Formats: sequence, structure tokens, C-alpha cells
Amino acid sequence: MSNSAILLIHCPDQAGLVAEVTEFVHKNRGNILDLDQHVDRELNHFFMRVEWDLDGFLIPREKINDYFETLIGKAYNMKWQLHLTERKPRMAIFVSKASHCLYDLLQRYGTGEFDCEITAIVGNHKQLEYIADRFEIPFHYLPITRDTKQAQEERTDALLRELGTDFIVLARYMQILSDNFCRQWPHRIINIHHSFLPAFKGARPYHNAFERGVKLIGATSHYVTADLDEGPIIAQAVEPVNHRHGIEDLKRIGKDVEKRVLSRAVYLQLQHLILPFGNRTIIFN
Amino acid sequence: MSNSAILLIHCPDQAGLVAEVTEFVHKNRGNILDLDQHVDRELNHFFMRVEWDLDGFLIPREKINDYFETLIGKAYNMKWQLHLTERKPRMAIFVSKASHCLYDLLQRYGTGEFDCEITAIVGNHKQLEYIADRFEIPFHYLPITRDTKQAQEERTDALLRELGTDFIVLARYMQILSDNFCRQWPHRIINIHHSFLPAFKGARPYHNAFERGVKLIGATSHYVTADLDEGPIIAQAVEPVNHRHGIEDLKRIGKDVEKRVLSRAVYLQLQHLILPFGNRTIIFN
Amino acid sequence: MSNSAILLIHCPDQAGLVAEVTEFVHKNRGNILDLDQHVDRELNHFFMRVEWDLDGFLIPREKINDYFETLIGKAYNMKWQLHLTERKPRMAIFVSKASHCLYDLLQRYGTGEFDCEITAIVGNHKQLEYIADRFEIPFHYLPITRDTKQAQEERTDALLRELGTDFIVLARYMQILSDNFCRQWPHRIINIHHSFLPAFKGARPYHNAFERGVKLIGATSHYVTADLDEGPIIAQAVEPVNHRHGIEDLKRIGKDVEKRVLSRAVYLQLQHLILPFGNRTIIFN
Amino acid sequence: MSNSAILLIHCPDQAGLVAEVTEFVHKNRGNILDLDQHVDRELNHFFMRVEWDLDGFLIPREKINDYFETLIGKAYNMKWQLHLTERKPRMAIFVSKASHCLYDLLQRYGTGEFDCEITAIVGNHKQLEYIADRFEIPFHYLPITRDTKQAQEERTDALLRELGTDFIVLARYMQILSDNFCRQWPHRIINIHHSFLPAFKGARPYHNAFERGVKLIGATSHYVTADLDEGPIIAQAVEPVNHRHGIEDLKRIGKDVEKRVLSRAVYLQLQHLILPFGNRTIIFN
Repeated sequence: MSNSAILLIHCPDQAGLVAEVTEFVHKNRGNILDLDQHVDRELNHFFMRVEWDLDGFLIPREKINDYFETLIGKAYNMKWQLHLTERKPRMAIFVSKASHCLYDLLQRYGTGEFDCEITAIVGNHKQLEYIADRFEIPFHYLPITRDTKQAQEERTDALLRELGTDFIVLARYMQILSDNFCRQWPHRIINIHHSFLPAFKGARPYHNAFERGVKLIGATSHYVTADLDEGPIIAQAVEPVNHRHGIEDLKRIGKDVEKRVLSRAVYLQLQHLILPFGNRTIIFN
Repeated sequence: MSNSAILLIHCPDQAGLVAEVTEFVHKNRGNILDLDQHVDRELNHFFMRVEWDLDGFLIPREKINDYFETLIGKAYNMKWQLHLTERKPRMAIFVSKASHCLYDLLQRYGTGEFDCEITAIVGNHKQLEYIADRFEIPFHYLPITRDTKQAQEERTDALLRELGTDFIVLARYMQILSDNFCRQWPHRIINIHHSFLPAFKGARPYHNAFERGVKLIGATSHYVTADLDEGPIIAQAVEPVNHRHGIEDLKRIGKDVEKRVLSRAVYLQLQHLILPFGNRTIIFN
Repeated sequence: MSNSAILLIHCPDQAGLVAEVTEFVHKNRGNILDLDQHVDRELNHFFMRVEWDLDGFLIPREKINDYFETLIGKAYNMKWQLHLTERKPRMAIFVSKASHCLYDLLQRYGTGEFDCEITAIVGNHKQLEYIADRFEIPFHYLPITRDTKQAQEERTDALLRELGTDFIVLARYMQILSDNFCRQWPHRIINIHHSFLPAFKGARPYHNAFERGVKLIGATSHYVTADLDEGPIIAQAVEPVNHRHGIEDLKRIGKDVEKRVLSRAVYLQLQHLILPFGNRTIIFN
Repeated sequence: MSNSAILLIHCPDQAGLVAEVTEFVHKNRGNILDLDQHVDRELNHFFMRVEWDLDGFLIPREKINDYFETLIGKAYNMKWQLHLTERKPRMAIFVSKASHCLYDLLQRYGTGEFDCEITAIVGNHKQLEYIADRFEIPFHYLPITRDTKQAQEERTDALLRELGTDFIVLARYMQILSDNFCRQWPHRIINIHHSFLPAFKGARPYHNAFERGVKLIGATSHYVTADLDEGPIIAQAVEPVNHRHGIEDLKRIGKDVEKRVLSRAVYLQLQHLILPFGNRTIIFN
């Protein structure tokens, strides 16, 4: 059983930051398992991820946050997240009608590749309920009309919080979330866009890619912000296409890229390897 | 010594096109070396590339075009290009100050990978003249100011025609060609744009890619049309980047992608493997 | 509804082959939808795939084979396969304990990406029966011991023939098929090997890849022959790995490559795009 | 002007290593620019790369090594390399007749992408002397026969040492270095092998790849050890090939992969990003 702590830290750069943090861990008898740091020279900003073994660590886990704040965090004006690996991340999945990403996520969950709990599958259509059933995960049918959008989002938000959800994965969910909802889940909603952003934002990217005659099609996973398709990018990939491929082929090939890119983002999220900053992400991998 | 003929054909689709063309070659004792065809189902348009051995072919090479037109081309409303491999394509290269693409092209030329003649290297700056000298290729320094642009383009056009140039490669040439010049060389100017089009059109794509926090950077080779960065795409490629890469790293990594993508386009052009149609390209490879 | 015929042909090269075949189709009022041919210059051997619309084709479908043999095939010493797209290919899947490839295949089948019938899932272990149940496909538990191997293969062979199976997919099936069984299903068994063949043949390729310190790991799909891991290769892909990746990471990353490469081979098989010849494959794509 | 120090360290893992090293830098007023560490869980071995700014660092650069040994290195049984960025690495290049890798390296050197000195180009043939001349780098023609091999290697070794050479790049050098020579330059000779090792070791890898019908061809850069093609791998890459590609095409496509993979290894070497350990490499990138 994994029993370690992970700190994701960022702050304005200054001398001695790495030494301070490693001393904090070391003096309290924590053994560092992994350390990665990065300084953005243009922004003069410091980023760090450190993981250490909690066996024999002197500070009780419920007090680590306080001690870190008092001893280091405040003094250096740091922002940080603390994650304990003994707690499994809790993920919700939103779907509409397309099944490929949902199947892919559930398969990885079913085989233990994703070490998490799935709190709920939320669909604004009923079509994929049978897949949730096959995997024995609760499916919540929450249809949306223009009139019910706000109410549905509030209901969804309440449901997810009640279930102790940490983050949401939009697995080809074909509804635009309200600004308000996005702001409730900052850096906690992961979307898959079916193009290589910033090319082909918005709807029908495969049609647009076909029209433009591109030789590669791609997919982009990103955190959702109030600006559609503009949130921090987590992962991207492409596949070659050629003149033999019609729009249906682009969609077929694209589905594979979407699955790969979305599952990569979810994996990074579950491993606490992503540190978003402004409109970019630091991926400690 | 290669001694074959290549026909690149397109026309509205109808039954029997492949049979007609292959019969034309076969009845005149040409042996087909390579045949590839494609029908665009959405446009109902037919595309074909056929190469055959000219040894023993009954029609003299200077009359092939006429015979083909009379016997087949006219009847089916075809458009076509005829290329004889015994004639080496004649290429000009335009440069400004960046040397990586020029070096790469000359190296491939020098080692025989590109089977062509280089008629001229044209620079609007003098910086790269020494490279032309090293490879013993004539360098023409033709500087441009806003006032001299039209005159310079006319002079360049005259020079290239005098030298029997078939097509032009813009090897990171940092001048926008006039609409008029572009129209003089339709599907005969190949550019390399240092982004994965249609993302990051225009100037400073690496800066923009950095700002957007993309996880892949790319390059695009395309035919130049009057619409900047909008011509038919020939080849594209990408390379992964991450948060450790500053703008200078993106430029460094990008240079490699640019070289690869531009040389691929030139290779396809030299092998007569590209058939442009509307804003797309059929690559018979 | 698709209603076309596909011929996969090969024979010693000679002049006029393309013309003969296209004439055969054209004169009988078949419209060619797709044609691709290839001549191996080192072997002087000719390969061709042609697909034509059967609407209005003069030869009844049950006689196409005879007519083709009489009119062309015999004269040119051709070998060929004829496929009619109205008949869905019938595929069996063999599994042991690893679920990722099975899930991936079933998901593609479930979403219509694979246009085929699945006649049976055969397992030498019971572990994956529940997945077959979820997708409502008959699961046959046929355990193997050294003593029962021959009997089990005979039983399996009989079962598959009774179900009208066209080809078999080994989805990480951890048994070596007997030479005899392999010979019964020539070019009709597709395996996924979890390495970039010919590197790391045999068992435990990820361990061996780790030991060797490679920077890419791969997977290979191939037709099964009596020579283990030596059959004609259909598809290959790789993914980058680095020193951070332990053996479990290689397995995790490798699973994704395996899924991708196996599903690609199955897709090509279903579309009749593969022509095996000696120890190589022509992929008309 | 860059003015920093880089330590590449490895030792048996134990608690507090990162804290010790960062404290050493910090207490002596060095600002850490970059830190990356890795623990191999299977070998229980620790690896680290740390770079810090030397401006204001209290220990004079000529004494850093001594101080580090006394204060830390000895106590923890560390092995380490210290590099100062103010000193440009000094590289020699060995060639035979193939020019593509040599051209590629020189082009990167010429454009400033490689920040190093080239001490010599050594050829056992004269064919590429003109390229050295073009770039104004001394070319040493040192032919080899079975009888002169030992003498030539001794002469080469003496020459390289006299020129203060740090490491050697074999740019498609077609001679097998003696065990003795290899041992003189441990982890200081970089080779490019024209296959995806461990597939297709030895001579004629493209022929073997063609025979086996692989769908990807590759290249591998590695440190040279006495065991041919068995040294620690630094970088690998592949490119797709298909049935249309004859052996000459594989060679042509392969050249591009070779250039890319060799230049990547040289870049990593110049940036002191490689830490070899046993038969593997840690690449801090």
C-alpha cells in the first residue's frame, strides 16, 4: 500500500527554495522518493513537486499542511497543494452520446490502471446508461434544456459534492458548462477537445480539418475555464491522415487520439503530476 | 538512367477512367511501373498518377501529350501534367538570414538525395552567400525595400525564367510575395511555415505557441497562394515540447521539424507525387 | 449498404496486368471505386487490390470467381482472393487473463467501428468470461494442459468452423498454437506481440527492454505461422520511455501500444487491405 | 555568458541526499537553476543532476571538486562529474564515406546550435575532406588496414589528447574500434547505429529490416563499449515504412532518422544531461 505525501508548490523564485523544502522533509525524517523542480526564467517563477515516504515521518498527516504553512509556505509566499496517496482520488464522468472515451476510461478503471473511485457517470442523454450498468457504476440522467440548464447544473454540483468528488472528466460531453459552474471547479474539470488546439476551436473540428486539407489531426485535453477551448492544455497528440481519408475516417482515427489524450490527462491528474499556472501547465513527468 | 513518363490526371469521376488510361499505355507498349488512383466521394472527382517505362513505347516522347489529349484527355474533360524523368527538375531557393533549411536542402542535393538542378539561390540579405559559395551555387543578392519590391520581383521573375526554373522553394524567406508574383508561379512555390497550420498563422508562431502552452509544436509546408499561409498543405509534422522549453528551445526544436517537413515537400515535388486540387493536395505516396 | 467486390491479386510481373484487370471490370459494367497496385522490383512480382461497385455488374456474384479465373487469372498465373462486402467477416477472439486488448476490440465492435460478426470468445482461463457476458458474446472456456492440448485444439477448430469463422485474433492469448493448428488457418490468425519485433522475441519482452535500457518500446501485430514470432508483420508502433519508467510502467505504456497495433491489424483485415506474400505484407492503405 | 556549475551524481540511495546537496549549494550562496533527481527502486540507487549559478558562489571554481568530495561525496560513497559551463566541450568527429551525419553535425555547429569546439575530423577515407574544408575544420586522413590498425589508433589517440578532446562522435564511421581504444574513452565515444537496437545488430541492418518486412525502421545512438552495439543507449527514433519502399528507400529514410538521433545524443552530451550507469542512461531532460 502506497503511503506517501506529495507537495505541489509554486512561488516567485528566490535562492534557497529547494534547500528549504528538502530540509523540511529530511529533518522530520521523511525520505524523498521523487523531486522535480522548474524555474520559468521569463516569469521568474518557481515550481516544484516533491513526494516523500510517510513511514516514520514525525509530523502527523493531518498537521502537515499547517506545519508547512507556518515553517515555509508563508515566508516564501508559496501556493501549494498537499496530496496523500492513501486517499484515492474521486472522479466523476460526464457524457452525452459518444461512447468511445467513456469505454476507454472504464476499461482502464476496471483493469486497475486508474487507481481511483468513480463517484458518478452523469449523462444529459440516456444512451450510455447501459455501459455504466455493465461496469456497475451509478448513472445519473440529467437532461438539459435552455430553461433547465441552471437548475440542472446546481443539481449536478450538489450531487458531485455529496459524493465527495474531486474532479470531473468531460468524456465528449456535448454541453457548454456555464461560467459559474466552471468557476466552482477551478482546475478540476478536464475536457477533451477533438482537435489540435488552438487549431479548429469550437464545433465540427473534423469537418474543418478536412476542408483545410491538413495532414495530421489531433486532440487536446485541457482544464476547463470560462473561456471555451482556452483553458490550460494538459496533453496533445496527433495522427497522420491523407487524401484517402474522408470525414468519417477522420472521425474514426480521431477517436483513437481522443481516447489516448484524455486517458493521459486523467492519469497525470490521478498521479498529482499537473501544476497549472496561468494558462499553462507544468507536467512533472 | 531512369527513363519513364508520369501522368498526373484529374477530372470529374465516371466509369472506365482507369481502364481507358491503362489501355492507352498498354496498347502503345508501355509497361506500367506504378499506378495509384483516388476518387473523392464528396466531390465526385477522380485523381490518378501513372508511371510507365518509355523503353519501347510507340509514341515519341514529344508527341505523348498530343496523343493523350486527342485520344483520352479531351473526351473525359481531364486536366493533366506530363513529366519525363529524363529531365531533371530545376529548382530555385529563396532565403533571408536563417541558414538551417538552406543547409539541409543543399546537403540533400550534395549527396544525391535530391535529383535536381539548383538554378539559383536568391537572398534579400547577403548573410547566406557564403553557404552558396561553399556548395558552388550562384547566389543572387536582391534586396527589397517597400519602394523596390515590385521591381525586385520582376527582376527575380525574369532571372528565374531565364534560368529555366520549374519551381521555387522558400527556405525561411522572410518576405511576403506579391499576389501578382504568386499568380505567375501557381503550385510552383513551396513554403515552410514554422507552425502546425492553421494554428499560429502569421509572424512569431513560436512565441504564440509558448504563450498558449501547447504540448506539441509543428511545421507546415504548403504551396504559396495569394492568401498568406492558406495555400494547399503538402506535409506537416510535430515534435513534443514541455514546460522546460523556453522560446529559444521551441525555436531550436522547431528548426528540426521545419527542415524535415520542407525537405519532404521538395522530395515529393521532385518525384511528381503531388497533385494539388482546390485547397488540398493528393500525395501519391 | 455497401455492395462491392474486392480482388486481392498477385502474380509474376508482366506488361498489361493492370489493363487486363481494369478491362475485365469495366467491360462488365463495374465501376472501379478503388485501385492500388505495387510491383516489387527485387522479386519482379505484381500485387493489386481493386474494388468495384456491384450495382449493374453483369456477372452474378457467385460466378465472378469462375469468370475471373477463366478470363484472366489462369492465363497470368495469378493467385487471388475475392471478397464481397455484403458479407460481414466473422472473427473469433482468443484470450487468457489480460483484458485490455479484449476490451478494446469489443468496444470497437460495440460502437460499429469494426463491421464484423464475433463468432466466439475462447479462453483457456475463465477470468475474462464476465467481459464476454457484458457484451453478450458467447464465451467458451477451453482450458489446456500439456496432455489435453491436441484435443483442445481439435475441439476449438471444430467449434470455429461450425460457427463459420473467417479468422482468429489472439488478444494476448498466452498459449503457443501447434504447428498443425497454425497450418489449418494460414494468414487467418492475427497475433499481438508485446515488443517491436524482431527485438525481444519470446517471453518477457518488457523485462528485456528494461534491462537493455531502450528509449522506445513497441508492439507488433503479425500473422501467426509455425515459426513463433516470425510471421508476416501487419502493423507496428512504438512509444517513448525513459529512466523514470520501471517495468510496471513499461507494461502500462505497452498495453496502449498493443491495443492500438492490434486494432489496426484487425481493421485492415476487415477491410481486406492486407495481401501477405512470403514473409511480408502488402498493406493497401 | 553562461557561468554555472553542473554536478552529475550517483550513489546508493539513502535518506537526506537531496537535502545535503542542496544545502551545500545554498550555504555557499549558489542559486540552484535546475535540479532533477531519480531513484531506481529496483537497484536502490540514487541519481541527481543539479546546476547552479556561480555568480557570488563562495567556493572558487577550482576548489569545488575538493570541497564537494570532502563535505559530501566521500561520506555518501558518491561518484560524480563536475562541469563548468564557461568551458566549451571539445568534440572530435570520425567519418568514413557517408556524408549525411557529418553535414548535419557541422550545420548545427555552424549555426550555433551546438555550443562546442570541434577539435578534429578524422577520416579513414579521404572522401569527406572537402566538407571539412568547407567548414574550415582540420581533417586528418588516417587510413586503416588490418596491419596498421593498432598504430593508427595510437596515433589517433595521441592526436585527440593533444587537441584536448573531451569526446568522440562516430558519424557513420565504418571501422570497429579496438577494445583497448574503447576502454581509453569510457562513455566518451558516441556512435550512431542504423537500426532500432537491439533489432538488427551488426552490418546491413536496412537489408535485414527489408527482409523481415518491418513497418518501422529506426536508429540508435549509444556510448561505445567493447561489446559491439551493446553500449548504453542514449536516444532512439523510428520512421514508418511500407511495402512501396525498397532497400534504397529504407536507406534514404533511415539517413534522416540517423541524423536526428545522433544530433540529439550530441546535444544531450554537450548540455551534460546524460548520466550513464551500467548498461543504461539517465537522461535529465
